[in-house]
Amino acid sequence: MHVLIHTDNDSARWQRVLANALPGARIDTTAEVGFIPATYLVVWQPPTALLDAQTETLKAILNLGAGVDALLSNPALPDVPLYKIEGGGMEAYMADYMLYAVLHFYRGFDLYRAHQSARQWQPQPLEEKRDWPVTVLGLGTIGAHVATLLCEHGFTVAGWSRSPKALEGIDCHAGMDTLEPLLGRTRLLVNLLPTTEATTGLLNHERLARLPEGAVVINAGRGATLELTALASLLERGHLRGAMLDVFPNEPLAPDHPIYTAPNVTLTPHIAAPTPIDDAAVQLAERLERLEQGECVPGVDRRAGY
Amino acid sequence: MHVLIHTDNDSARWQRVLANALPGARIDTTAEVGFIPATYLVVWQPPTALLDAQTETLKAILNLGAGVDALLSNPALPDVPLYKIEGGGMEAYMADYMLYAVLHFYRGFDLYRAHQSARQWQPQPLEEKRDWPVTVLGLGTIGAHVATLLCEHGFTVAGWSRSPKALEGIDCHAGMDTLEPLLGRTRLLVNLLPTTEATTGLLNHERLARLPEGAVVINAGRGATLELTALASLLERGHLRGAMLDVFPNEPLAPDHPIYTAPNVTLTPHIAAPTPIDDAAVQLAERLERLEQGECVPGVDRRAGY
Repeated sequence: MHVLIHTDNDSARWQRVLANALPGARIDTTAEVGFIPATYLVVWQPPTALLDAQTETLKAILNLGAGVDALLSNPALPDVPLYKIEGGGMEAYMADYMLYAVLHFYRGFDLYRAHQSARQWQPQPLEEKRDWPVTVLGLGTIGAHVATLLCEHGFTVAGWSRSPKALEGIDCHAGMDTLEPLLGRTRLLVNLLPTTEATTGLLNHERLARLPEGAVVINAGRGATLELTALASLLERGHLRGAMLDVFPNEPLAPDHPIYTAPNVTLTPHIAAPTPIDDAAVQLAERLERLEQGECVPGVDRRAGY
Repeated sequence: MHVLIHTDNDSARWQRVLANALPGARIDTTAEVGFIPATYLVVWQPPTALLDAQTETLKAILNLGAGVDALLSNPALPDVPLYKIEGGGMEAYMADYMLYAVLHFYRGFDLYRAHQSARQWQPQPLEEKRDWPVTVLGLGTIGAHVATLLCEHGFTVAGWSRSPKALEGIDCHAGMDTLEPLLGRTRLLVNLLPTTEATTGLLNHERLARLPEGAVVINAGRGATLELTALASLLERGHLRGAMLDVFPNEPLAPDHPIYTAPNVTLTPHIAAPTPIDDAAVQLAERLERLEQGECVPGVDRRAGY
C-alpha cells in the first residue's frame, strides 16, 4: 500500500502516526516526494497538480477533515471513492466551541464586554435556558452531537436537516418548507450545514430577517451558507443581537473585510473543530486496511455533496 | 410564623413564592411594613437598622445567598442561628460561568479577540485539556461541583480547601503548606473561597507570582481574597496571561478603577451565580418549617465564617 499525504499543517506528524498504525505501508508526504502517483491520497485541500498526477493505481482519496466541498468542486478530482473524517473527536471540539458561543450570548458576556468598555456595572436578569430556543441546522455526526449536548444543558433545541432525522429530546424538522417557520421561533441559530448546492446562500437576507428581534447567529459550518452582507445589515439595524463566526466564504478573511467590525460580532479563524490527529489516524488506518482488503467501504455521496 | 423579607432585588417575588410554599405563614417585606420585629428574617445585605429592630421573638436569620461575610461583619447581628442558601441551583449557574471562563482561555478566545481588533487571521494550535491543569480554591458545595464538572470535561483538576476533602478524580490538597507548591503547577486558577479572616488577601503578589508564566486567574468567590493591584501588576508585566473577575472588594466597582482596563481582563458585575428564586424558595420553606417545629437545623459556623 502506497499512501501519499498532502496537507499544509503537520504533514510530518500525520506521516508518523499513520506509519505507526500501518507498519507495512509506504507512507510519503508531498513535501518530501512531490506530486507523484499513489494508491491512496490522504489530503487536505490538494492542489489540482497533485490530482492531475494520479494514475489508474489510485484507489481512493481520504479527506483530512469533515468538509469535502473544496474537493468536490475541483474539476480535476479523479473518479475514485472519497472518504472524510467522521467524528474522530472533532465533535467534542465543536461541542466546546458551541457551548462557549451559546453561553456567550445567553449569559450576557457580550453585553458585559460592552459595559466594561464603558466602565459600567449593570447586572442583567438571568433567564431560564428553556426560554432560549436554539435551532441547529445540519444534523450529521457533528450537528447531532451539538444538538444533543445543548439539550442536555437545558436549552430548548430544534434541529433541521435535508432528510428527516430523529434525535431524543430534539424537535427535528426536515425540508425547505419547515425552515422559515422554524427560524421565526429561534433565538440562537447554530449553522453546521455542509456546503452543497442546496445550502449555498441558504441564510440570505430574507431568511435571516425571519429570526425574531434580538436573535443570534453562530456559524461554524461553512462560510458559503451565510450571506455576510445580509447578516451585517441586520446587525447594524439592531434586528439581530450578535453573531459568532468561525467560517467565511474566502479564508483567510481579507484584512479589510467589513465583518471584522460589524456590531457585536466575534470572529475566530476556522478553529472550531480541528481534526484531532491521533484519533483521526486510527480511523484512517482502519479504513485504509479495509479498502486494501477489497472491502466495500461506504464514503462520501458525491451527489448529496457530503 | 412571621417572616420578614428584605432584599433590594425581587422582594415581591420572594414574598409570592414563599407565601405559596408556606400557606399558613405571614410573609411581609420591609418594602411594605418597614423595619419591624419578626420571627424569621429572610434577607440579603440587611441594613443595621433592620437588625437593631429585632426582639427576642427572632428565631433565625436566613441569608438569600451563599456568602454570609457581609452579615457576619455587621456588629448588629443578633445572636440567633444563621442559615445560607446551599446549592439550590446556584452551583449550576456557577458551573456554566466557569466552563465559559475556562474555555475562553483554553480555546484562545481571548487571543482571537485581540487578533480580530487587529484584523489578523492567526489560528492557534489546540492543546489537550489534560495539559491544562486547573486548581479550584474552595471545595464547598459550589467548588466541589465546579471541580468535578471541569474534571469530567477532561481538564486535569486539583482542589484546595481549609479542611481535607476527597473528591473523585480531583487531586485534593488542604492547608496553607500545600498552597504555594500547588500554585506553581496551576495554569488556570479558579477561586471559589468564601471571605474569612484566613482567606482575606490570600491571593497576594507573592502567591500570584508563584503561578507559572502564562497562567490565568478566575475569581468568582469573593473580592477580598484577591489583591487586584498585585494581579494588575503581574498582568502588565506579562507574567500572567489574563483574568476573568466577577467579584470585587467594593461593589459596584468604581467607574475609575484601573482594573477595568488591565491587560486581557474580562469583568462581570457579580452575576456568576445568582440565587434561583424558585429552587431556593423550596429550600427556605422546608428549613422554616423544620425550625418552626423546633428541630435543630445545622447552619452557618460563625467561627469558621461560612
